[in-house]
Amino acid sequence: MLRNGDFHALDRRACLRLLGGVPVGRVVYTQQALPAVLPVTFRLDADSSVVLRTAAGSELVRAVDGAVVAFEADEFDALTHSGWSVVVTGRATLVTDPAEHERLARYGPDSWMPVREGVFVRIEPDMVTGRRLTGT
Amino acid sequence: MLRNGDFHALDRRACLRLLGGVPVGRVVYTQQALPAVLPVTFRLDADSSVVLRTAAGSELVRAVDGAVVAFEADEFDALTHSGWSVVVTGRATLVTDPAEHERLARYGPDSWMPVREGVFVRIEPDMVTGRRLTGT
Repeated sequence: MLRNGDFHALDRRACLRLLGGVPVGRVVYTQQALPAVLPVTFRLDADSSVVLRTAAGSELVRAVDGAVVAFEADEFDALTHSGWSVVVTGRATLVTDPAEHERLARYGPDSWMPVREGVFVRIEPDMVTGRRLTGT
Repeated sequence: MLRNGDFHALDRRACLRLLGGVPVGRVVYTQQALPAVLPVTFRLDADSSVVLRTAAGSELVRAVDGAVVAFEADEFDALTHSGWSVVVTGRATLVTDPAEHERLARYGPDSWMPVREGVFVRIEPDMVTGRRLTGT
């Protein structure tokens, strides 16, 4: 069981470095009053916000735009029982500024699937926490 | 971007088979009105419920006992852009029946860390959804 007390806490810089090294994380939000979670590819922007690309008008956009969400990424090794997890918590907002959209379209997150009418969602890194499990 | 429409939906049996093959998933819940997520080791019980072991009186137990939570597991390959994800949504309850606790203590989830005064939390598989991404 990976529990709070069993991890070594990671500082914000270490968290962001780990987060920048993986392609997939999970958006955690509320949908129709139920907890919801969706794996997504993402990119860390220069201001440490998490940027996702999704389809305009998607359920995800409707559910998270303007809401506080969590974004989690991790890596664990089942053989050594070691690994890390990082959680970013903050407000998610649809990127509506045309210049910002254009910049992200050029340098933002890659997509593993074609997205028509792609839009970007930014999650502010208001809280960044992480833990490392060093194995048993 | 891994989005709803880009996955092939998996039926319940396929979801449970995939879920039974990985050691770590993520509990998704609400803590102090904020979305929260915690990686945990787990085991699928014979009735397809997800069973976790954690410390008695832990923040996790306080936050999830009696609440509807989501539990997510996935595997993705960054080279082939393929993988799967499964989400179980249902009520989480602390196991209080002594016989049931005893059974789980013998055959339940292993722990990657020592847990003193371990308790078990069961998540009912009320909704089981999953998707497979076949790559680009």
